[in-house]
Amino acid sequence: MYERRDAAIVTVGSELVEGLRVDTNTAQVARDISRFGFAVQEAVSVGDDVALLAETLARLASACALVIVTGGLGPTHDDVTRDAASAALGLPMHSDPRLVGFLEPFVARHAHPKSAERILSQALVLDGAEVLWPSTGTAAGQIVATPAGQIILLPGPPHEMRPMLTQALGRFTSQRAEARELGVTGWPESDVQHAAQSALESFEGIQLTILARPGDIRVLLLDEGAGEAELDRAAHAIAEKIGAACYSTDGSTLADTVIREASARGLTIATAESCTGGMVAAALTDVAGASQAFLGGAVTYSNASKTRLLDVSPADLTRHGAVSREVAAAMARGAKEHFSADVCVSVTGIAGPSGGTADKPVGTVWFGVLSSARDGMETQELVTWTGASREAIRARATARALDLVRREVIGA
Amino acid sequence: MYERRDAAIVTVGSELVEGLRVDTNTAQVARDISRFGFAVQEAVSVGDDVALLAETLARLASACALVIVTGGLGPTHDDVTRDAASAALGLPMHSDPRLVGFLEPFVARHAHPKSAERILSQALVLDGAEVLWPSTGTAAGQIVATPAGQIILLPGPPHEMRPMLTQALGRFTSQRAEARELGVTGWPESDVQHAAQSALESFEGIQLTILARPGDIRVLLLDEGAGEAELDRAAHAIAEKIGAACYSTDGSTLADTVIREASARGLTIATAESCTGGMVAAALTDVAGASQAFLGGAVTYSNASKTRLLDVSPADLTRHGAVSREVAAAMARGAKEHFSADVCVSVTGIAGPSGGTADKPVGTVWFGVLSSARDGMETQELVTWTGASREAIRARATARALDLVRREVIGA
Repeated sequence: MYERRDAAIVTVGSELVEGLRVDTNTAQVARDISRFGFAVQEAVSVGDDVALLAETLARLASACALVIVTGGLGPTHDDVTRDAASAALGLPMHSDPRLVGFLEPFVARHAHPKSAERILSQALVLDGAEVLWPSTGTAAGQIVATPAGQIILLPGPPHEMRPMLTQALGRFTSQRAEARELGVTGWPESDVQHAAQSALESFEGIQLTILARPGDIRVLLLDEGAGEAELDRAAHAIAEKIGAACYSTDGSTLADTVIREASARGLTIATAESCTGGMVAAALTDVAGASQAFLGGAVTYSNASKTRLLDVSPADLTRHGAVSREVAAAMARGAKEHFSADVCVSVTGIAGPSGGTADKPVGTVWFGVLSSARDGMETQELVTWTGASREAIRARATARALDLVRREVIGA
Repeated sequence: MYERRDAAIVTVGSELVEGLRVDTNTAQVARDISRFGFAVQEAVSVGDDVALLAETLARLASACALVIVTGGLGPTHDDVTRDAASAALGLPMHSDPRLVGFLEPFVARHAHPKSAERILSQALVLDGAEVLWPSTGTAAGQIVATPAGQIILLPGPPHEMRPMLTQALGRFTSQRAEARELGVTGWPESDVQHAAQSALESFEGIQLTILARPGDIRVLLLDEGAGEAELDRAAHAIAEKIGAACYSTDGSTLADTVIREASARGLTIATAESCTGGMVAAALTDVAGASQAFLGGAVTYSNASKTRLLDVSPADLTRHGAVSREVAAAMARGAKEHFSADVCVSVTGIAGPSGGTADKPVGTVWFGVLSSARDGMETQELVTWTGASREAIRARATARALDLVRREVIGA
């Protein structure tokens, strides 16, 4: 069990308050710390203004058990977080000799003495702070005690921030609220919500949250007193209710699941993409260890490349068009021919914004699947996403292609 | 000319501070109001907590010429913005008869009297407020004078918020500020900053912001009194200083630039990817109209697929390894063979986390370029990104491959 404690998130950067970048760190940090019993009261973005940031940090540090600050730890003159935290907490800074040693090779690469000084500013640490070592990048994080709890300074780039946050949250383990995360694809958000709510009716002390992205819905269950065993039972009940559309109950992504399930069965995968233009392959290869199952793919954007690379007949392209059942089938067969994979998936569609016709509007996508695992079984599927943007059509088509492979692999 | 005036943005909703939704309204509102001379000092997200929201609004309303609030104007008990604004500004509310008339048809559809009461709560208006009529949805906005300027209450859903904000900003038309955005790839952030700062030394009234992502840096110039012609001259001076690494001065992405420059010259492109696994092709096809220049690509993740799809000789793979100058060259040649594109680029590397050796550590990436535009000129390039994550290595390799194509296309 855990109690919820007040937290605040501060994201630093003029690009945020000027609207030049959407802040995704706040949502990420809020989710991550919620698992350790922290409830965010307030999330603030401030520009690269040392006085305003110091004022904000002083206000929040005295009110919240945990303040997480992201951004402003780099080497440039815009990086004001160290100075602001020092002023807000009344703590002087010193140069950390280990960080200086770490930064010296970077200094050596820059001829300009002004650059050297700026780079070494990243070695400045608040008195009494614990240093969070950078796993990527050059900006170190810091944890400092405050009257109300602690403040954690983290770099802004998500790929630097995330591992450091995980490391910093290690200390709160004993208060960790357990969570379960399910992945669902192919269902509308409202249906997922309805199924999850009805499955949870017989459970108590579990908080439900639904997160929807194009083609991918995450169901989050947070332990608010139910206990781990009940949480597992609840996750199981929801997965059962949703059926095959629920692709994972352990937080894995759809691509993770495809690679893991295929690897476990010794099955190989190849892709043949037109409108998704490599996104299916890119999603699969985003998984470390993808080479266990993924052999490769063809991105055949032009008609000529469909013929040359995948042996799609020019007659089929002329008669049925590039976005057709016949061409989807031929693309999957071509992938099979070239990669000899157990499961081959093809995608051909009209992502827009132009290229649609009355017959085949923007959003029309044909998929083909060829599976040697089931005696060369071949299927094609047509989906039409009307009114969606190019970006959403490509994202949904990618998720659908991955899911077709998953279903083929697990035999669902 | 315009003067910059302090503004604040407040986004309301527990889903924001709990990390269940990424707040995109802040960036949108910040960009929209910056054109009217407002500089956002602070952007705050607060949950559906009337006391905390009232405290936040009171603090910001006394400090900023403009406070924009989005969310919390709907009919549910979670919608606390009207009550909080009333408390913060000490203004009582009254029921607006025109809004009541507008809402009555919605009331008629709901049998439950409690629903009726909640729906009609949307007709409550702060004394002295100007009503912003809803173009979509049922939530009206409000503009109220504050001691320091005004506060504008807007609904949360972006498609309701946006038109109402545009309507509200009509009153500020004369103060629009211009901006320029440059894209740079292949340089470290600190070098870009240094170059931009030194180029800007002879300019006044221009604010500089640098945004860095792996392999891609954006240089933003905001007019703070310089005027449009000076802004253009400044952008030109920075582009000149940075040289060929500056790929655009009009806000285009690297992939946009590649497709546009190639299309303009009638040149075609094909890709052969290993460690980037389709990301280069996906980036190119993200551009609407990519089919003008992009023919397709091969994603050859396994050695066998490099041989089968791209005719890379097994002997080269054995002798030099998949990550080598020879294989990068052979992959580019294979892409040329199959796609007959004018510019073919290949990428083969070790993205990690495993697979590195002392000889070829994680982060080692070979690129190959084959260009029929310059008499079949062939180049290979080796880059080693040490200490970077799988995600960062793949992102940087993607940017590098796109840039190699760009340089080949423009002859830089």
